[in-house]
Amino acid sequence: MVGPFLSRSLSAARGRCIADGVSAFSRGFSHVSSDSGEDANPGTAVDRRRRATRDEIRIRDRVRILQLKGGIAHVVLSRSSKLNSLDIQMFEAVAEAASRLGSDPDLARNLRAVVISGEGRAFSTGLDAKSVALSGPKSAMKILLERPSPYGGEDGIGNLAQDVCILWRRLPVPVIACLHGMCFGGGLQIALGADMRFSTPDCKLSIMESRWGLIPDMAASVCLRELVPIDVAKELTMTGRIITGEDARRVGLVTRCVDDPIEEAFRVAAEIAERSPDSVASAKELFQTTWTADEADCLRRETDLQMNLLETWNQLAASCRNFGVNLPYFNPK
Amino acid sequence: MVGPFLSRSLSAARGRCIADGVSAFSRGFSHVSSDSGEDANPGTAVDRRRRATRDEIRIRDRVRILQLKGGIAHVVLSRSSKLNSLDIQMFEAVAEAASRLGSDPDLARNLRAVVISGEGRAFSTGLDAKSVALSGPKSAMKILLERPSPYGGEDGIGNLAQDVCILWRRLPVPVIACLHGMCFGGGLQIALGADMRFSTPDCKLSIMESRWGLIPDMAASVCLRELVPIDVAKELTMTGRIITGEDARRVGLVTRCVDDPIEEAFRVAAEIAERSPDSVASAKELFQTTWTADEADCLRRETDLQMNLLETWNQLAASCRNFGVNLPYFNPK
Amino acid sequence: MVGPFLSRSLSAARGRCIADGVSAFSRGFSHVSSDSGEDANPGTAVDRRRRATRDEIRIRDRVRILQLKGGIAHVVLSRSSKLNSLDIQMFEAVAEAASRLGSDPDLARNLRAVVISGEGRAFSTGLDAKSVALSGPKSAMKILLERPSPYGGEDGIGNLAQDVCILWRRLPVPVIACLHGMCFGGGLQIALGADMRFSTPDCKLSIMESRWGLIPDMAASVCLRELVPIDVAKELTMTGRIITGEDARRVGLVTRCVDDPIEEAFRVAAEIAERSPDSVASAKELFQTTWTADEADCLRRETDLQMNLLETWNQLAASCRNFGVNLPYFNPK
Repeated sequence: MVGPFLSRSLSAARGRCIADGVSAFSRGFSHVSSDSGEDANPGTAVDRRRRATRDEIRIRDRVRILQLKGGIAHVVLSRSSKLNSLDIQMFEAVAEAASRLGSDPDLARNLRAVVISGEGRAFSTGLDAKSVALSGPKSAMKILLERPSPYGGEDGIGNLAQDVCILWRRLPVPVIACLHGMCFGGGLQIALGADMRFSTPDCKLSIMESRWGLIPDMAASVCLRELVPIDVAKELTMTGRIITGEDARRVGLVTRCVDDPIEEAFRVAAEIAERSPDSVASAKELFQTTWTADEADCLRRETDLQMNLLETWNQLAASCRNFGVNLPYFNPK
Repeated sequence: MVGPFLSRSLSAARGRCIADGVSAFSRGFSHVSSDSGEDANPGTAVDRRRRATRDEIRIRDRVRILQLKGGIAHVVLSRSSKLNSLDIQMFEAVAEAASRLGSDPDLARNLRAVVISGEGRAFSTGLDAKSVALSGPKSAMKILLERPSPYGGEDGIGNLAQDVCILWRRLPVPVIACLHGMCFGGGLQIALGADMRFSTPDCKLSIMESRWGLIPDMAASVCLRELVPIDVAKELTMTGRIITGEDARRVGLVTRCVDDPIEEAFRVAAEIAERSPDSVASAKELFQTTWTADEADCLRRETDLQMNLLETWNQLAASCRNFGVNLPYFNPK
Repeated sequence: MVGPFLSRSLSAARGRCIADGVSAFSRGFSHVSSDSGEDANPGTAVDRRRRATRDEIRIRDRVRILQLKGGIAHVVLSRSSKLNSLDIQMFEAVAEAASRLGSDPDLARNLRAVVISGEGRAFSTGLDAKSVALSGPKSAMKILLERPSPYGGEDGIGNLAQDVCILWRRLPVPVIACLHGMCFGGGLQIALGADMRFSTPDCKLSIMESRWGLIPDMAASVCLRELVPIDVAKELTMTGRIITGEDARRVGLVTRCVDDPIEEAFRVAAEIAERSPDSVASAKELFQTTWTADEADCLRRETDLQMNLLETWNQLAASCRNFGVNLPYFNPK
């Protein structure tokens, strides 16, 4: 709530950033605003294909990370021959993608948003039961359920099955899942780990696990309570019913329905990239850490996070944009 | 999220169940799927009346429990001459019904779902103030407010007024309240204890207690936060305003509106009976125990519950249904 | 849930009130019911202007408190030349208004509801960045962020920036914010501290802080989780997007949209004034203190609060209104 303190001179603020050891300009002015670059309005399928020709990282032949202009990482589930269903390698590839986007300097440096989508006919149909069974249920269970997984880092709290969901929450940027075709079981839980879910109206969604005699154990209990009433969570989980994107929006499972979710995700990512990366990261952290916390803890956390934002370069740069002065942002150390 | 592990042979899985001391087949193949019995689609009022002629248990002349095919227990509030309002005997009968459905072997054995409805013109109009007053306010208060009540068992945390609501949450099966006519005060709180609420569009609902200078103290604070925003909870509680089923659906107080809530409840119960009773019970337990819990606790709980489901007979039976193989389920010990 | 216990005689109940040291009648029969006073249906703008000529308290030339008939305090943000934006004096005036309405005997005695609105073209456009900057950012920060603020009393947990929001939650009466024009940033967070928000359909709302490189730190983390899903909270906070009142209603940020929010607020305040002030205060306290609490704590709290309501004068008076007997209420000591 505390304002820009414009009386402080721009150079003073920048001075502080540099004094803090952030060699700001050495990083280049990469965070172009949405109205200053050719990709600002990501537009057509052609645009997207052109983006896709840029830097691309492949992980275990299951996930591709496209590094697009404007700091957007497009994570593509790329096992379309199997409807992006989850075999052990897919679990590992998704967790590794989320982990590397947070820790690999080349990927994390200028990151402003992550967009996740599925190649081919579906976002993901969930567990590839046959493959997991063939790979030996005992060893598969060990790999999936042993806590913590190797991907969560020092303060990891999830197993691999959960980390493909919750590691997206650890990233300091907005993560948007784009759903189309089918989004079932483990696939849906990956999407629930994102900050927002944009879906086609006719996408088919299901908390599918009960059809296999199981419960959703990939962080559904963390994510659903933040989104839907408990009667919705219970009914969808107990029945395993398949609903449409439009139904899912009505109950809160997806953020909204649009015909082109990836388009919409790029648009929102560009909108958020106008803001300071620090304030965006702090907003995400604030809500995730206080959603069920004690009231006094909430209030202290708000102030602590705010204190770290006040009078920084990025706070000033954000403020200046209100006056048409378009300074670049610098990601935190 | 972990799959069916179909490589394990069916007989091996069944062997484990039996080794666990579950004498499976002795219980009979009672859990018929929804498309294999005459009552699968419970259909017309005639059907329902015919069901009602089967096993019936009467409790204190206030509540009837009809044991229907497919493991459905239909709990009928049966004080229609007083619009199913709650005198002390009604409180006791409702708590006893919920308690016995969980603990009486004859009732609990093959139970797959509970449907609660009210006989006559209303679900329930709430407290029968006159009767409670005439029975002596001091002794009534003692009976209603002393904690724990005699109905909650060893780990009971509610008094009698609360147990008529929260004991439904303890049952390992879905509980669906069917609302029509009027659903006021204590009657509404009984309904809030159910996992889902189906209502006629014109049913009248009210958090009525403020009209008697009181607050809702029958677990409303546990249930409302799981369903509605706090401004809705405050406004309805402070005003005691009467709203329609349609209004109630819009704000989240009821799960949905249909013309024949009992019909819809039987339909959903049959849908859930297709799933493993263990996964259904675990889903209910998972959400109820983690809705406000610490994130790491949520994740551990998910995995713990899942471990108990994996590689059991019921998990296999659920999985087989996806391939058209219709094995029966066995309730847990 | 326990009823009125009408068998107790009216005089006995009143006797107890007086025995408790509440010299009831000395306070006068000020809580007229909504259908017995000229202002019951606050009606037209003319009515309102006439109300405004009654007792009025001005605080720092920023906030006016109008004491209206029926125990309604109308708090008017009165810095319309600056669109009710928040300079340091405005922060102090709002916190002082909330604090005094709770503690100043003249204001608190017969208080039944608080209605907050903004004078002129907007509810409030949030922080007056220029003024705060000119007043010296260092001292402004100290005043706004030092915890606890001087306004929260002995058990204060907020700083000044937060107290302009959360002190409304401490009042034992419903607080309704009436939004029109613009409601941005700190202005929106003041509104989030109210129990309900009524908005014009075309009011513009924004969690504006990210446009200044900041996060909402005026208790947004306490209030938003009670109202909206986390994806909504994240998207609105990260983007700083401006939405309409109608959009805000759809996602849960405002309670409802009406053409004349102040009119509607007076109507709801009168409706609630029909109920016992004690039960209304307890309902507010119940939900606020249990929304994220442990289940057993919720149940105990319900019963504890109820015990304090049972068999009091106000409980009896509320009950009598159901039989057309219109006894006055007396505020708690």
